[in-house]
Amino acid sequence: MPGSSIGQRLVLTSFGESHGRAIGAILDGCPAGLELEEKDIQKMLDQRKPGQNLISTQRKEGDVVEIVSGVFRGYTTGSPITMLIWNSDQKSKDYDNLKTKLRPGHSDYPAMVKYNQFNDHRGGGRFSGRLTATHVMGGAIARKLLKVAAKIETNSFTSQIGKIKMEKKFNEKMITSIYKNEVRCPEIKTAKLMRENILNAKKKGDSLGGIIESITTNVPVGLGEPIFSSLESDLSKAMFSIPSVKGVEFGSGFAGSELQGSENNDLYTIKKGKIITKTNNSGGILGGISNGMPITMRIAFKPASSIAQKQSTIDIKTKKETILQVKGRHDPCVVPRAPPVVDALVALTIADHALISGIIKPVL
Amino acid sequence: MPGSSIGQRLVLTSFGESHGRAIGAILDGCPAGLELEEKDIQKMLDQRKPGQNLISTQRKEGDVVEIVSGVFRGYTTGSPITMLIWNSDQKSKDYDNLKTKLRPGHSDYPAMVKYNQFNDHRGGGRFSGRLTATHVMGGAIARKLLKVAAKIETNSFTSQIGKIKMEKKFNEKMITSIYKNEVRCPEIKTAKLMRENILNAKKKGDSLGGIIESITTNVPVGLGEPIFSSLESDLSKAMFSIPSVKGVEFGSGFAGSELQGSENNDLYTIKKGKIITKTNNSGGILGGISNGMPITMRIAFKPASSIAQKQSTIDIKTKKETILQVKGRHDPCVVPRAPPVVDALVALTIADHALISGIIKPVL
Amino acid sequence: MPGSSIGQRLVLTSFGESHGRAIGAILDGCPAGLELEEKDIQKMLDQRKPGQNLISTQRKEGDVVEIVSGVFRGYTTGSPITMLIWNSDQKSKDYDNLKTKLRPGHSDYPAMVKYNQFNDHRGGGRFSGRLTATHVMGGAIARKLLKVAAKIETNSFTSQIGKIKMEKKFNEKMITSIYKNEVRCPEIKTAKLMRENILNAKKKGDSLGGIIESITTNVPVGLGEPIFSSLESDLSKAMFSIPSVKGVEFGSGFAGSELQGSENNDLYTIKKGKIITKTNNSGGILGGISNGMPITMRIAFKPASSIAQKQSTIDIKTKKETILQVKGRHDPCVVPRAPPVVDALVALTIADHALISGIIKPVL
Amino acid sequence: MPGSSIGQRLVLTSFGESHGRAIGAILDGCPAGLELEEKDIQKMLDQRKPGQNLISTQRKEGDVVEIVSGVFRGYTTGSPITMLIWNSDQKSKDYDNLKTKLRPGHSDYPAMVKYNQFNDHRGGGRFSGRLTATHVMGGAIARKLLKVAAKIETNSFTSQIGKIKMEKKFNEKMITSIYKNEVRCPEIKTAKLMRENILNAKKKGDSLGGIIESITTNVPVGLGEPIFSSLESDLSKAMFSIPSVKGVEFGSGFAGSELQGSENNDLYTIKKGKIITKTNNSGGILGGISNGMPITMRIAFKPASSIAQKQSTIDIKTKKETILQVKGRHDPCVVPRAPPVVDALVALTIADHALISGIIKPVL
Repeated sequence: MPGSSIGQRLVLTSFGESHGRAIGAILDGCPAGLELEEKDIQKMLDQRKPGQNLISTQRKEGDVVEIVSGVFRGYTTGSPITMLIWNSDQKSKDYDNLKTKLRPGHSDYPAMVKYNQFNDHRGGGRFSGRLTATHVMGGAIARKLLKVAAKIETNSFTSQIGKIKMEKKFNEKMITSIYKNEVRCPEIKTAKLMRENILNAKKKGDSLGGIIESITTNVPVGLGEPIFSSLESDLSKAMFSIPSVKGVEFGSGFAGSELQGSENNDLYTIKKGKIITKTNNSGGILGGISNGMPITMRIAFKPASSIAQKQSTIDIKTKKETILQVKGRHDPCVVPRAPPVVDALVALTIADHALISGIIKPVL
Repeated sequence: MPGSSIGQRLVLTSFGESHGRAIGAILDGCPAGLELEEKDIQKMLDQRKPGQNLISTQRKEGDVVEIVSGVFRGYTTGSPITMLIWNSDQKSKDYDNLKTKLRPGHSDYPAMVKYNQFNDHRGGGRFSGRLTATHVMGGAIARKLLKVAAKIETNSFTSQIGKIKMEKKFNEKMITSIYKNEVRCPEIKTAKLMRENILNAKKKGDSLGGIIESITTNVPVGLGEPIFSSLESDLSKAMFSIPSVKGVEFGSGFAGSELQGSENNDLYTIKKGKIITKTNNSGGILGGISNGMPITMRIAFKPASSIAQKQSTIDIKTKKETILQVKGRHDPCVVPRAPPVVDALVALTIADHALISGIIKPVL
Repeated sequence: MPGSSIGQRLVLTSFGESHGRAIGAILDGCPAGLELEEKDIQKMLDQRKPGQNLISTQRKEGDVVEIVSGVFRGYTTGSPITMLIWNSDQKSKDYDNLKTKLRPGHSDYPAMVKYNQFNDHRGGGRFSGRLTATHVMGGAIARKLLKVAAKIETNSFTSQIGKIKMEKKFNEKMITSIYKNEVRCPEIKTAKLMRENILNAKKKGDSLGGIIESITTNVPVGLGEPIFSSLESDLSKAMFSIPSVKGVEFGSGFAGSELQGSENNDLYTIKKGKIITKTNNSGGILGGISNGMPITMRIAFKPASSIAQKQSTIDIKTKKETILQVKGRHDPCVVPRAPPVVDALVALTIADHALISGIIKPVL
Repeated sequence: MPGSSIGQRLVLTSFGESHGRAIGAILDGCPAGLELEEKDIQKMLDQRKPGQNLISTQRKEGDVVEIVSGVFRGYTTGSPITMLIWNSDQKSKDYDNLKTKLRPGHSDYPAMVKYNQFNDHRGGGRFSGRLTATHVMGGAIARKLLKVAAKIETNSFTSQIGKIKMEKKFNEKMITSIYKNEVRCPEIKTAKLMRENILNAKKKGDSLGGIIESITTNVPVGLGEPIFSSLESDLSKAMFSIPSVKGVEFGSGFAGSELQGSENNDLYTIKKGKIITKTNNSGGILGGISNGMPITMRIAFKPASSIAQKQSTIDIKTKKETILQVKGRHDPCVVPRAPPVVDALVALTIADHALISGIIKPVL
């Protein structure tokens, strides 16, 4: 498959460009018989939507989803589910002066070479963060499917912005607090600091990065197809398709590589008749297969590449150094908008594996 | 595809079990006309082979590769290249007492559940690190292909063992020093410390983890298929198929998420008529596409799960807690044997994308 | 991939239902730089459109294509090309009484069981011949790509309706005559007889089948990936995705199996410096690979399943025999509308293989 | 995937060349827990083996299968099952004079161009009928899986050799008679005539083709993934990967295209509480989905291309016409050896779809 699709039995295909006529997604392989309406998807899209507060871009992306196929009388039919969002608030002119000046950190230069300048460069075109709305459309369905058909739940939150980190370890009680603030950090005190930091960066014409943590609970033992479709392989593949993601780790991850085996090994015990591990340094995955513990992942986002400060760069026409000042409305930090995107891709990947493993059946 | 294969146009299929009759690999999609003989593959297998020194397992894995198809009169034919290694030094009895006691950190438990106990558990079976020899077989060919057909070179080395880290940043001149010591760290002084640390852990019946860094040079601009077959997506998918890998980052990675955009953005300039970036925080990939800079990746390995110390665990038969002491010969640290495995999977992934992009042609 | 997509490097995804909101297609993997506008696609859609004359259904399917992504300033961008047709002339009520009475020859019964009655049954839903418009959308682009990038041309025509067969063998001069009559048979005299036969069948409330012949010229030597992606394998797979197709043969096909080797073998000779065969019983494919001769294929269509006559069947509710009379507007013979569908799927398959073989490059 | 693999969840990968060191097959995705030993596979290989009588080639292909992975203590493990046959009776010299003279009807010329002469030409190399033994290895397992896990049975037989056709229609009672004669035709009288015809052709240095019929019974309703992985699509794709196959039809096939809808439609009725059709012109497939009736297919084989008679051809070196006389030991008719190959590929395809549909589970 070319690069616009992901999954094996549950396949998301994303299409559209930031300033094109529409963006959209097709979810093929979703079991027939899932109750589904547009508001199931809209809710999660709204969590990703920009322009909601001071810390995100003031662009108004209506992001109203329209289902055009695959749902009949309120239930999925087993046929591909097609979802559309029509683009409206396009200010393509903002990008006209960028056409020749390469924006540092963006895909402009490699995309220009790869597609021999035929790519739609407006607003980042196919590479715009806006396209993550298509992931959310498909993921919202996968997430509902997981919940309804297998009681699996996936959530994620902001655990770090720049150098500001959460103090406590995440626990499941915090889930209800995630969307209570703009940065989507369930620790109120830290959330405030994060917000301030973002506003400071914005004031300076700069940007921040951060870390999203994802936790998936009630995963049955046995998801993942060794060797090359290990659960970690497929989850990381999905994560690295999100713009700005530059690192992914499971369980104790990079920190775990500094531990000794006797410290990092999770010892087995029995709780309420169920085999569990006392710790979860493995992040719920051993040998590429889920072991029944929560799947935990940390995802590193680089600081947003679009900054208001002047930067030196190359003008592709003159092949000389020049000064670039990116205009337009941009997020000083994309991390607060990322949790629904992470949730969507985690849900798509886990649901795909649940279908492969026979945990979820092709018809509900 | 089920999980034993990776790649789209250049596909590696791995087969075999640690204590079965043989392990092997098929590489399908390799262009016809590549000069190839067994010693091209053997050389890289020997770099991975255990039993070479004090710091690795004393198991003797002959690991002699035999090509049984796809090569004719010294050149690849365009047909699938099949490679075999017959297993010999099997001490399956060592694992008999393990059959019911779940080894912490290993795939025993999830594999047992997933395959309803039909899986071959001897020596870790399909999940054994031994299987990475099959990756190396395929990767050795891909690496040669990249070099011959596109002058792309990939190398990796140990940059951290436990808490011991290299002092200097890696530079290309260090490449020739990688295999000059047992830990495959190009910094001699640090290599010695790492070796001592591993021997210490071994003495205590414990194990260590560490970090491998990978660098691929002379990559043309334009590899990677957005959105979902981004170069980072496919490289990370390959890395997470290596047992013990729990984290992957590109360029500035997790550290980059603490920087500001003005610090992390790589500014463009021109050098010898070629557009390059002054820094390489992106790790050579922007928007999922190679930008012509070296591709840099850091891969976190957890400490080896097999340790000689007693550990509490569950006996699957009695469903009660018990004490386990893993016998047999095990690596106190797998990291020094990992560079050829990382190189193999990087080469396979980059070569696959080179074929997709038309950089390498289906016939040389 | 679930079943809504076809191809490896050039992938068509079809979506929508006969009486849903829209039908559409995504073509992913089309090289950047192909000049493309809606009328390139519309022309071929119009050839498939019903309601144009007495011998086809009087339903008015507007079939106006709208490109919503993947084309920028008149050229393909390398991103997925999304095309939509909004449904309008829906008379879903005609199908209400069919909901429980199984229509012979249709997918009603197996679809009902497969999807546990969640499938959209209106107008045949996902199984309607109307969906072949989505193949034509993608195929029109592939056909233009083949012509522009490789000078390959594909055409097809009606060679048989019921028992009426063309008298002469097809030759390339006939191509311009194909669309000069309603049945798309380039032999005028035979075309008239075919038309009469169809009208007769219609009068009796019955239907006819027939045979389409396809010929693709200027195919370079070397397309096809043995063993399992042979050119015949992939072309036949595409053909059997067309509703009503029940047979496919290449070159001398079924008749060839009655010949002797000395009669059926195509002998090589040289013409204008080019190696060709004196006959073309192979249909241009040897060992699954194109040999440079025209690719010839014959495709058998069963008579249309929807007939006005009363038929005995089962009522799924009562599980008893009953009488069914299909109403609505139906084609007494779908064959005359099939050539553009065949051309589309042939073009998609050949273009996919041209990309795989490197004959067409990922960027024009 | 390159061309050496077929299937989605149950994937067969074929490797090896006719005169190479070995041929073999990997079956990945086979559920764990299937009882399996070499003789399950050997039995079906023996049915395909040449040199058993006067009407087939006198080459001795030992064809002794060896399982080297994926089976543990008599049961499949869920890991890839690798099977090998070592080549022995190679007379590659017979082919030396063929190297420059193009053999009519063979893949020599297109393969030479496609692989730029790097392909292994000995004995047809990768294109030899010998490679169908790899299909049989995988198919024997799939066939057993279908029987054990879903009670689905598939059989095929010779229904026509040259112009000699069976007189009666096949019925299930004939199954036990198929392997009672050398031509594998269950009609004794016709079998004798077929045998004589083959011997006559052989005497004249000529060859014959014929038709194989395949019938699969007890198929549940609901296999097949519309639109593009219709059951007919995937079965035909598999059939056309067999050398010499030039036509495939389901149910009434080409003959059905001459019927009227009222004649060809299969009317529904109820028998023993089960919905069936009174006739089976659909060949058990409607809308690309199995409808519960037996799946019937006819497969046309061209006459064998290797004939002893002199043929005019081109010498690729001189680029001039020359006379070729193929030596070596060849089948005057490959059809009698084809039923196990057809059965194998039918079983692989149906089992793949049974896994996709959830009819067969990933672990038995």
